[in-house]
Amino acid sequence: MLYTQSFSKLIDVFRKMPGVGSKSAVRMAYHILAMSDEEVEEMVNTIKSAKEKIGYCSVCQNTTESDPCEICSNPKRDSSVICVVEQPKDVVALEKTREYYGTYHVLHGCISPMDSVGPEDIKIKELLGRISDGEVKEVIMAISPSIEGEATTMYISRLLKPFDIKVTRIAYGIPVGGDLEYADQVTLAKAIEGRREI
Amino acid sequence: MLYTQSFSKLIDVFRKMPGVGSKSAVRMAYHILAMSDEEVEEMVNTIKSAKEKIGYCSVCQNTTESDPCEICSNPKRDSSVICVVEQPKDVVALEKTREYYGTYHVLHGCISPMDSVGPEDIKIKELLGRISDGEVKEVIMAISPSIEGEATTMYISRLLKPFDIKVTRIAYGIPVGGDLEYADQVTLAKAIEGRREI
Repeated sequence: MLYTQSFSKLIDVFRKMPGVGSKSAVRMAYHILAMSDEEVEEMVNTIKSAKEKIGYCSVCQNTTESDPCEICSNPKRDSSVICVVEQPKDVVALEKTREYYGTYHVLHGCISPMDSVGPEDIKIKELLGRISDGEVKEVIMAISPSIEGEATTMYISRLLKPFDIKVTRIAYGIPVGGDLEYADQVTLAKAIEGRREI
Repeated sequence: MLYTQSFSKLIDVFRKMPGVGSKSAVRMAYHILAMSDEEVEEMVNTIKSAKEKIGYCSVCQNTTESDPCEICSNPKRDSSVICVVEQPKDVVALEKTREYYGTYHVLHGCISPMDSVGPEDIKIKELLGRISDGEVKEVIMAISPSIEGEATTMYISRLLKPFDIKVTRIAYGIPVGGDLEYADQVTLAKAIEGRREI
């Protein structure tokens, strides 16, 4: 046993974090030991309080400290447009563009039979609930074009067919400033497929 | 403001960890939100309990759950030999070799005037205390050969001069399985300097 029991457990805490390997986890555990008691106390309280205060918006399912969230309760946002994304971080990425004034809907995952995630495991029911209210005019699908993402986009757009709304998806193509030479074939094919008249 | 206050604070907790950039910190913060209340409670308790239980050995200054630590209190270890290292993780690295049966002394840092770390800020006083007991026959310096490391090694070996003990340092050279072509000049020079008759 190279590490004591408490220390091994501490390493495991960090090892479970996304993107943290065993060497980084050990470094983080040593970092905790090197912190003062007050610093550790503050850290622990920050984690607890964040977990207590942050919940999910009952409308768009995004993480929020108030319900409905700032975006859903903002009268300047166009609630007739819903942009469907996988994760809360996608909302942050889209908000950074400062170009979108509609609302969002966070699915919290994709349909993935391999990981036994079915349509009932993600927030599709909640999306349909918002649409049956009748005020929504357009749903923009902004889900990553992975196999699972494509399946989810297709599944949802089929569900939305019966409603009289426009269903669109964001454009895939060459990134701005990107070089044709370095684009992968699928992206390039999507870029040609999605060409527009100039 | 892209993130709420509690969430920004949560990101900061992880941002302060060694080797964690801002993107990783955001991923970890989202990971916390995705955890169940029970999982967060358990995580927080593990951190608190590790911090409470793990202290420093009064002899060798290594991290330990019992005082003196397992190595210092093991009668099979040769307490007449002390290997001086910078950090507790260096003890783990040396223990993994299963070749060393002496004891350790952890300095918890190097003398570094640039970071305003002087000799009194690391555990040199405690090392001298152990040596004045008179039982120590050899001190092996195993500190990384950086500028600060070299200065610390030199400082300590000068302090140990008046005592009648052997002061050695670990060998620097080409790593086993390493290729001459890829070794840096300093390492190669050290390897030539430290050559031995075969």
